[in-house]
Amino acid sequence: MKDSSGSLARAVRHGANPLLTPNGAVASSPGLKIDGVLNCGVTRFKDEILLLCRVAESAPSDGSVARIPLIQKDSGSTVIVSLVKSDHPEYCFEDPRVVTRRGAKSPAVEYLTSLSHLRIARSHDGVSFKLDDKPAVWPVPPYEAFGMEDPRITNIDGCYYINYTASSPAGCATALMKTTDFVSFERLGLIFLPENKDVCIFPQKINGKYYALNRPVPNAIGSPDMWISESPDLVHWGRHQHIHSASNGRVGGGAVPFLTERGWVAIYHWADASDRYCLGAMLLDANDPSEVIAISTTPLLEPVELYETQGYFSNVVFTCGCLYENGIVTIYYGAADDKICRADVAIEDVYALLDA
Amino acid sequence: MKDSSGSLARAVRHGANPLLTPNGAVASSPGLKIDGVLNCGVTRFKDEILLLCRVAESAPSDGSVARIPLIQKDSGSTVIVSLVKSDHPEYCFEDPRVVTRRGAKSPAVEYLTSLSHLRIARSHDGVSFKLDDKPAVWPVPPYEAFGMEDPRITNIDGCYYINYTASSPAGCATALMKTTDFVSFERLGLIFLPENKDVCIFPQKINGKYYALNRPVPNAIGSPDMWISESPDLVHWGRHQHIHSASNGRVGGGAVPFLTERGWVAIYHWADASDRYCLGAMLLDANDPSEVIAISTTPLLEPVELYETQGYFSNVVFTCGCLYENGIVTIYYGAADDKICRADVAIEDVYALLDA
Repeated sequence: MKDSSGSLARAVRHGANPLLTPNGAVASSPGLKIDGVLNCGVTRFKDEILLLCRVAESAPSDGSVARIPLIQKDSGSTVIVSLVKSDHPEYCFEDPRVVTRRGAKSPAVEYLTSLSHLRIARSHDGVSFKLDDKPAVWPVPPYEAFGMEDPRITNIDGCYYINYTASSPAGCATALMKTTDFVSFERLGLIFLPENKDVCIFPQKINGKYYALNRPVPNAIGSPDMWISESPDLVHWGRHQHIHSASNGRVGGGAVPFLTERGWVAIYHWADASDRYCLGAMLLDANDPSEVIAISTTPLLEPVELYETQGYFSNVVFTCGCLYENGIVTIYYGAADDKICRADVAIEDVYALLDA
Repeated sequence: MKDSSGSLARAVRHGANPLLTPNGAVASSPGLKIDGVLNCGVTRFKDEILLLCRVAESAPSDGSVARIPLIQKDSGSTVIVSLVKSDHPEYCFEDPRVVTRRGAKSPAVEYLTSLSHLRIARSHDGVSFKLDDKPAVWPVPPYEAFGMEDPRITNIDGCYYINYTASSPAGCATALMKTTDFVSFERLGLIFLPENKDVCIFPQKINGKYYALNRPVPNAIGSPDMWISESPDLVHWGRHQHIHSASNGRVGGGAVPFLTERGWVAIYHWADASDRYCLGAMLLDANDPSEVIAISTTPLLEPVELYETQGYFSNVVFTCGCLYENGIVTIYYGAADDKICRADVAIEDVYALLDA
């Protein structure tokens, strides 16, 4: 379907964007400030739409000192590691998100500058959201010492499986937990070893097996590509298959895939060498999601609006979840790594993008 | 136990070393030559000791051209890619094992210079081995396009599970296959995503679960450390736990662990920044192998003999398997990445090293 200008229709941003920002959000402790309310899993639960948001917090500093919040391994307490920048010529403080070691061969990230936890925002209309004042889930060491990021929610028969990036000095792995009430959460361990993010678990068994998209980052050979893995139980994964390479930059799963008459639709992201993140759509075979039927080459959404091009980390649109109801895909997405926004697209327009 | 000089006893090399070399081995096709017969899994099978060897082959060249053997994705045929070195200033040809891309951020390996397959060597006395003239298992694309390396054999109730590094443009992953006769082999897919090598599967369930040591190589955060993972069925793996960091360089599983009165003993390797590989021992709890009881800080074996310090890649001792019989650990190991050798050590001497 093309619009009146003849262009392919894209996702339409909601007029109320951004729906959630750090403004007015309550920090988890007096010593921390909220840098971002971003990348959220989404689900309907009872009579509400819930967003499980990544809330990124940092410790205020005067600029000459980097103050790094993290979870202490033994106590599980939040501590702040202070680095006087002039004392550490071995570190680079230029990227707002990380402290890296100068001159190191990869891996080079020593610290994340912010510590993320997961927090619920609730809405009846899918537009007006109220962010809880307290965390829903707080990171636990050792594998979450640097935080919990980018949750995806997969509803399987009323049990909500939540995978998220577990960041720690041991690397960025993917962890799984489950809940039935969004009050208590049971951790099920790491499901993908570091380095592996952008995991999307399909919401039902396909030919007797669960599937998950994932994005390992190899070191010696290979590139940050999309793979798909199988599981009998959601906890143990194998029979990994490579399904998509980024032609340039990197690519990864976004929203939890949903089933359509044409097959599984997955809204995914790619980033170019300048770290500009866009969203696209891919279509996977209904009976064998390792078969990629089509991938959009035109972005479904790209950073254009001011709230996407300016923020904690600029030029980013990044999704962890959508709703697919009545032929409309409602995408909730992180904008510039500090806000949550919404865009809607008719499934026919997604098909048109895939057919283009 | 200390020897007469007061030093800790180490593994004792066999006088017949090296037991296997490329000399006299028959290449898999006329266009290839054998560069190495190395890193082998080991098991008793019927009345023989079998080594499942990595056989590395390359395409002869005059030095101005790099000739890269690999498996073509679509046909499955072995093809030779020729790179006239002067035509490719973007590549570095200095490391004999790989062609790397100059100035690239990691990952930087474009090709492996040799193509490895798996081949059986047989012996009645564990010393005099006859290498088969034909491959036992030949690489299959896409995940083995750059070869199959470093097999480990785990005998579980008479079924022999063989994991190995599956190398391809998509990365270095770990694949699993099984056999009951060492004639036909059933592939069970990739069990660990790239980048992950040095996988050792324990030979029995422990508290109802299979376990495997493995060594992911993260990119942004973390280092090449040892992890342990759980499985219900050997094919799907989860509940990954980090168990050991190298203080400097990297570390990885070696021989398949064996159970002793003190717990699981694993002969593992570490490599320093100059790529010198040594063997050590670690002791893991009998009922929970994620619990590391002790790790040797003194090498059990380090490259000293000429056949270890000189070869295809010098200063390497590297094991994929041992036999533990009558209180003696018989370690078969790759020497300088082109030969197979043997060293023996009494379990009491391993304990002494672990206690030191």
